[in-house]
Amino acid sequence: MAENLSTFKQGLHEVARAVEAAMKHRLANQNKDVPTLLAAAMAHGTLGGGKRLRPFLLIRTAGLFGISIADAMQAAIALECVHCYSLIHDDLPAMDNDDMRRGRPTIHKAFDEPTAILAGDSLLTLAFEILGSEDCHPDPAIRAGLVTRLASAAGAAGMAGGQALDLAAETQQSSEAEIRLLQAKKTGALFRFACEAGAMFGHADPEAMASLNRFGAAIGTAFQIKDDLLDIESTTEKLGKAVGKDAAAGKATLVTHLGIVQARAELDRLIEEAVTALEMFDSAAGPLRDLARFVNSRDS
Amino acid sequence: MAENLSTFKQGLHEVARAVEAAMKHRLANQNKDVPTLLAAAMAHGTLGGGKRLRPFLLIRTAGLFGISIADAMQAAIALECVHCYSLIHDDLPAMDNDDMRRGRPTIHKAFDEPTAILAGDSLLTLAFEILGSEDCHPDPAIRAGLVTRLASAAGAAGMAGGQALDLAAETQQSSEAEIRLLQAKKTGALFRFACEAGAMFGHADPEAMASLNRFGAAIGTAFQIKDDLLDIESTTEKLGKAVGKDAAAGKATLVTHLGIVQARAELDRLIEEAVTALEMFDSAAGPLRDLARFVNSRDS
Repeated sequence: MAENLSTFKQGLHEVARAVEAAMKHRLANQNKDVPTLLAAAMAHGTLGGGKRLRPFLLIRTAGLFGISIADAMQAAIALECVHCYSLIHDDLPAMDNDDMRRGRPTIHKAFDEPTAILAGDSLLTLAFEILGSEDCHPDPAIRAGLVTRLASAAGAAGMAGGQALDLAAETQQSSEAEIRLLQAKKTGALFRFACEAGAMFGHADPEAMASLNRFGAAIGTAFQIKDDLLDIESTTEKLGKAVGKDAAAGKATLVTHLGIVQARAELDRLIEEAVTALEMFDSAAGPLRDLARFVNSRDS
Repeated sequence: MAENLSTFKQGLHEVARAVEAAMKHRLANQNKDVPTLLAAAMAHGTLGGGKRLRPFLLIRTAGLFGISIADAMQAAIALECVHCYSLIHDDLPAMDNDDMRRGRPTIHKAFDEPTAILAGDSLLTLAFEILGSEDCHPDPAIRAGLVTRLASAAGAAGMAGGQALDLAAETQQSSEAEIRLLQAKKTGALFRFACEAGAMFGHADPEAMASLNRFGAAIGTAFQIKDDLLDIESTTEKLGKAVGKDAAAGKATLVTHLGIVQARAELDRLIEEAVTALEMFDSAAGPLRDLARFVNSRDS
């Protein structure tokens, strides 16, 4: 596993570099018509780091069906644009009020608040421009399907709704079920979309689609538990962002609710659930299984 | 014209009611999965008023090609969702800091700032969910085309970029060309999209498309000049929002730049240009010509 993990990390890093290059290219393409400051803020919020786990998940899920990295790339960067927009808006003073992200000042610190709001808005909008474009997929029915599914995952019933619940959780008691629901929306929705989109590229049959949905749901929850464990156990230096904020804000997470020992057990269980969901794909799902294990072992 | 105008206003009002009903229905459809407060904020930001000029423009442009109101309605409400999101975010304290809109408290006043940010994000996202859905148009190539065109109009090279330029214009001198560019983006882009989308519904040939693009561009600029004139000449009571803010902020508009007399002349010229652009459509374009004249004569 140690050797596997190192090979996996190398593969993850290679995809992340390709994602970075594709995002850079896409942003440069529109730059001539974009106000300079806004273009710079959008670049600051998207380029120069990040593990690019969601694009990786989309690309590797599509890869199960023989789709090349290049063919899945536009959908992958659209998804990452939505993720980056959500970080920019979540970091705003009126929301989580975070000054650091990926070891750098957040957009409203490096630029200003209005620019951060507009850069987030613009990245969300760009995601749909990318998904609707012929570059993304030759079949317009797939493109339109990707648009509705990503919108559904990111919107009021999905990620944005999860953030609304998360803010409310700072001032009111939450049950375990409520925490699970908010995290399934806030973090889980984009992980599930990543798998669903990959399956859509592959014209997956209902059985394969159901398996990948199970995988996406398990990996999303596992990712969030690990994030909450790192928030308690890691350092600002390692993570590139503030730690211990949830505890300070009295915000309930599955970790504070279950306790560290039981949360670790739940994390292990979810990783096994994710790996089991991939059974029908045999060895082709190797990178996705490795990703599941990486989610558990990562230290940043 | 007086009788025409009254008949036109009645038609505008009827379409506005149908748009309101369709938006209400669409919001209610997703509500079961949306946190209560967020759903209420989205309703507050979209329902209960507004002339719905952009949906009207889209619907009437599609009507030139025999498309029914019902068939164009989903695209029309998607466009209105984008317009409403832009008002919510523009009104935020970090942006234009407005307390009143359509005679009611703005979202961050009636709810709070994070809810306003998330309601705007959610409406922008919902717009694309609507455009991508089969309800919007049976042909997925049209749906995907509407998605990319609306995203392009609303994003960093369009409306969001225009807002960025508008904020910058508060602190720096702008030339007439710069003011025209920022307004073409900030206001013009959605008006142009309304016409373009109607033309896409009608599978317009290139000549018709070019005419409608000219019409949309002229009507968009005319609308903005009239808005800036009203900001000087009207009252908060009539408009339902603060007046005189641009002058107070020292923000240049075409009206402050040209002076009121010349701005009125430019407005008249643009209305004529808009009407002339419709020549090829003969009598079928009656409602669009009336809309052009209404933009000039409206007092709120």
